[in-house]
This record gives sequence, structure tokens and C-alpha cells, in this order.
Amino acid sequence: MVGIKDNIRKMAGYVPGEQPRGSDFIKLNTNENPYPPSPKVLEAIRSHLTSDKLRKYPEPLGEQFRQTAGKVLKIDPESILIGNGSDDILTILIRAFVPEMGLVASLHPSYILYRSLAEIQNAQFELIPFTPDWQIPIPCPCQNANIQFLANPNSPTGTMVSRANLLSWLNQNSIPTVIDEAYGDFADENALSLASDRVIITRSFSKSYSLAGMRIGFAVASPMLIRELIKVKDSYNCDVLSLAAAAAAIADQDYFLECRSKIITTRKRLELSLTHLGFQVVPSQANFVWAKHPVIASNEIYQQLKIKNILIRYMNYPSFGDGLRISVGTDAEIDQLLFYLDTILKGLNL
Amino acid sequence: MVGIKDNIRKMAGYVPGEQPRGSDFIKLNTNENPYPPSPKVLEAIRSHLTSDKLRKYPEPLGEQFRQTAGKVLKIDPESILIGNGSDDILTILIRAFVPEMGLVASLHPSYILYRSLAEIQNAQFELIPFTPDWQIPIPCPCQNANIQFLANPNSPTGTMVSRANLLSWLNQNSIPTVIDEAYGDFADENALSLASDRVIITRSFSKSYSLAGMRIGFAVASPMLIRELIKVKDSYNCDVLSLAAAAAAIADQDYFLECRSKIITTRKRLELSLTHLGFQVVPSQANFVWAKHPVIASNEIYQQLKIKNILIRYMNYPSFGDGLRISVGTDAEIDQLLFYLDTILKGLNL
Repeated sequence: MVGIKDNIRKMAGYVPGEQPRGSDFIKLNTNENPYPPSPKVLEAIRSHLTSDKLRKYPEPLGEQFRQTAGKVLKIDPESILIGNGSDDILTILIRAFVPEMGLVASLHPSYILYRSLAEIQNAQFELIPFTPDWQIPIPCPCQNANIQFLANPNSPTGTMVSRANLLSWLNQNSIPTVIDEAYGDFADENALSLASDRVIITRSFSKSYSLAGMRIGFAVASPMLIRELIKVKDSYNCDVLSLAAAAAAIADQDYFLECRSKIITTRKRLELSLTHLGFQVVPSQANFVWAKHPVIASNEIYQQLKIKNILIRYMNYPSFGDGLRISVGTDAEIDQLLFYLDTILKGLNL
Repeated sequence: MVGIKDNIRKMAGYVPGEQPRGSDFIKLNTNENPYPPSPKVLEAIRSHLTSDKLRKYPEPLGEQFRQTAGKVLKIDPESILIGNGSDDILTILIRAFVPEMGLVASLHPSYILYRSLAEIQNAQFELIPFTPDWQIPIPCPCQNANIQFLANPNSPTGTMVSRANLLSWLNQNSIPTVIDEAYGDFADENALSLASDRVIITRSFSKSYSLAGMRIGFAVASPMLIRELIKVKDSYNCDVLSLAAAAAAIADQDYFLECRSKIITTRKRLELSLTHLGFQVVPSQANFVWAKHPVIASNEIYQQLKIKNILIRYMNYPSFGDGLRISVGTDAEIDQLLFYLDTILKGLNL
């Protein structure tokens, strides 16, 4: 095969969580929201579902969405960049900031895609291990990166760095910094107010707004930086129905807060129940929980649950170790999970 | 602003055709299809418009779409790569094949995005001028590119290179080659059978299937090459409704052929009428016509039509010149265009 770059040929490629077809599975493996999107989202899609909207190109910058999101989040619409999911935004950022053989840094363990994006860009990738209490080490060992990533809350751990820790990190270097808030809507606080020429906040509609199927996300930074990023994105990176869905979703804050509250309540119950079952659980600020059993191998638990048609995510990180990331489902789904976990543990005579 | 790469900072960015809101315009500027998508497309979207489909991630590889498209086009589904519009595919190809300071070659004049993508990748860009009869010069002067692009039919001219010319070109070098068939569905022939480890055919649903608003396109190449390109694409680059729309659209070949036939009939009439009005017209194999008046400046005609709420595309290429690209609308739209063109020409005492 001629011409494919070596860095592409050599890389394994990012492997997303399993997406089985059919509805037999209890799916707690990719952090989807267990609740439906707002009824207003379905209404908005239906009202945009006309031949004329489908056959014409969408708004290149998603102006209507930007206006709505700007109003809800109390930020300048010009500071918003639309993305085909926040993965699209992460791709745009890597292409805008990182030259070939440049350096991408990320806290560790974190979202595996950061490394894949560095590999595609033929850049170096450096891991900055979190401290034992899930903060950024200060002083931070990485000083020369072209861009640095912090997922906050972090995946797979669900932990957050404190505001003070975040500010120390940002003050300590001047590296362009992405604060990936894909799970930010489930947390007690966020970094939206820090968006600047140098700090980019990314958000997703996949989790907190139940729209993983529609592929929509956005970035917030200074309008000047957003204008540069617009040059890098595909002209029409978001389709007309996704933009309509996202605008309707973010406008319905009552519905959003109701779902968020249910998920946080269930998350707390899940953490407690897992602890009672003997798991080591990290307190989460996201819509999932990171857990590890001190005796039984995580992979074994993952496999046994899969036999019962319950999918959770087994993850294994070099120089960190493995564990289980369990998305917060409905109460009924979590009851089933806990029932089978109990059965599995008992079956192993623990 | 720290860290944005110089090549990004210096570039102007691709500027897509105007997308005015409101329906007061006759829009003949971005090659949208004047006819609605198949009724089966709207049905398919409605049937996928469920909370469960929206809240879950879509199929990463678009398996159902690949099966349907493979059957219709009589090709291996594994040879198909889905894209968020064919622009997404072009971006993936540049990232897979072109290193920094590499070389991208394109016939000239052609789709301006090829240059923008080379600029984003910080690569060199080389133009290969078409011969006076719109063929590829043989021997082709460009021998060292990392990738070469041929839009066939070409934009803005609507011309096609002959099969013999295309084969000579491909045989003469071993450069990875993209044959961009965004307009291929309107032409008398296509290059699908040439897809290989080295030749990539790209297609769009924006024009021939009236789905510009839904952002869907695809590439055809060898399954081995497609597997490499999958590493470069975003995991979930197409959303659940777009994939459903595309599958329904390509399955309804009767409807497609009916619209195609109407557009080709109107195109021929437009070519003839423009010629009668004194324009120099290039015979087109696409859903638009490239025309230039020997006396009146193209930009003047564009401006005067815009005052009448008719949008066409004024284009100006370095070392080639300018002209007007007019999308084939409905017969009523083309009647209005011709009426105003006649008025404008008469007003200028020609």
C-alpha cells in the first residue's frame, strides 16, 4: 500500500467501547445517559425535518445554536466553536496547535483518544501522572508541550482537580491547555470562566444531554482563538438536525437539571453499594464510577457480567493498572448490575 | 495568542458559498439539489427518531449503510469509508497521506478546499493546469506529490477527463490518487471500478441525493486501505439519523434516477440558453454550468443577480481567471435566472 504515513500504519487506532446492536444489553460501558433527551429535542428535530432543510447546507458556524448556548451559559456566542461531537473539537485542536514531531501532554490515566490524536499527527505524547489524590503535580514536570489536556472530571476515574490546583497549573506554564469537560455537567463546578486565548474548554452533548447518537459538542475559548480554529474545522461540520437538537437541549435547562439530579443520586448509591460489595471506589464527579476489587481480577468481573448481558468497561493503562468503569444507568439497571455483582462474588466464595 | 501553528495563522481559511437564511433567494450558488430528498429518506429519519437511538452512540463504521451502499453499487461493503460529508473524507485522506512539508497536487482550476487542506497540514500545494480541452496533461508535470486530487466531473467547470486520459495518468505515476466524484452521479461514467490500494473514489450525498443538510459522504478504496483510514477518522464521525438517511437515499434508485434525469434535462437547456445570451459555456457533466460573458465582467453579473435575489457563484482563480458557476435549479428557477440575465444584458445595451 503506497503512501500511507508510517505513523498511521504503525498505530493501532482508538477502539471505542462496544456498541452492540439489539436492546438485550444493559449498556453501562460508554457513559451514555440512561434517560431520554428532552421531549423538546424530538420536537425540534421534527420541526426541522423538512425537505428544504435537508437539501440545503446547514449554517457553517451554527449561528442559532451559538446564540442559544451563549445565552444559557452567559458567554459570548463568538467564543463558541461547534463540533461534530467533542472528538471533532479535540481533532481540530491537535491540528491547529501541534506540528509533526511536536509534543502533546496529558494527565494520566485519562482519555485514551489524546494519545491516538497525537499519533495521527505524528507527534510525541507525554504522560503526566496524577498525584495519589488525583491532582496535577505542582510543579508540573511537562514544560514544552504544544498542547496539554486535562479531562476534568477525568475519565476513567471520575475525579476532579481542585480549582486551586488547576489555577496553579495554568499559572505555572503558558502551554495551550484543553480542559475537557465532556463530563463537566455532572460536576460541582466547571472552568468555563477560564476560557481565553490559551485555555479551551470542551463540552459534549453525548452524556449530559442524552445525544450521543447526534454527534454534537462545542469548545469555548476567546473569540480570537475561535476564529483561528474555524479555519481548521470542516466548513459544514455539524448537520442541520444535530444543531437543532443541541439548541433545543441546552435551552431546556429544567429537564437537564432533573436528569442530572437523578444521575447524581444514583451515582452516590452505586458508589456506596460497590463499597459494601468490597470494591475500592473513587468518589466520582461524573456519570460513571471507577472501581476495582482487591481480590478478583477486573477483567474476570467484566467477562462474567457480559455473560449476563451487562456491559461495563474494562480498562487497563500502562504504568497505572486496570479497573472497571461503570456508567450510571437507571436505578433498575444499577439494581441488576449490583445483583449480578453480588452473585458473581458469592460464586467465587468471597 | 500562543501556540497556534504559523501555517494556520497565515492562511485565510476556506470560504464556503453564501448560505443566506430565509427563503427569498433563488439559490444557485452551492450546487444543492433543487428537488427534495426521496420521501423514503424522511420516513427513515422518522423511524430512527427515537429516544433510544438519539441517546446511544451510532455505529462507528456505519455497518448498515455500508451493507446497503455495497449492494446498490455492487462493491464490497468493506471497501467503503463513511464520512461526515465528503469534506470529512478529504480531510481524513490528507491526514493519512501527507506529512508536514509534504506535497499535495491538484488539477487546476478545481475545488479550492484541496489547497486549504494542504495549508492546514502545513504541506506544499502544486497546481497542474488542465489542458485547453480540460484533460490532464500527459506526461503529467507533477511526480513527487504525497497525494493528488482530480475532481471528476470537475468544479467549477463541470468537465470530465476521458477514461483513456485518466488511465494514462494513473499508469504514468504511482502517487496515491483521489478521484473526487462529488458530482459523479450526474456524469455519463464513473471510476468506481478503479478503486484500489492507491486510488480512492469519494462521493457525496449533498448533491445527487439532496442531503447537503445531513452531512454524509463516503470513500471507496481497497478494504486494506479503508482499514488504515478508519484509524484516522473520528470514531463516531456520522450520526445515527444521517446514516439512516443515506441508506434510505441510496436504496431508492428509482427516485434518484428521476431527479438526475430532470437535472440533466434542465442543465442542457441552461447551457443552450446561456449560449444564446452570448455566454461562453463549457459543456457540463455535473449539476452546474460554468459560464463567462465575453464582454460583461462576471462579478458585475453576479452582483446584479444578487440584487434580484438570485445567488450564483462568482469564482476567480489565480493564473486562470474568473467566471460564473451556476447550479442547475428547477425549471422555474432557471427561467427566472434567464429572464433577469436577459434584462441585465439589455440594460447594458448589449
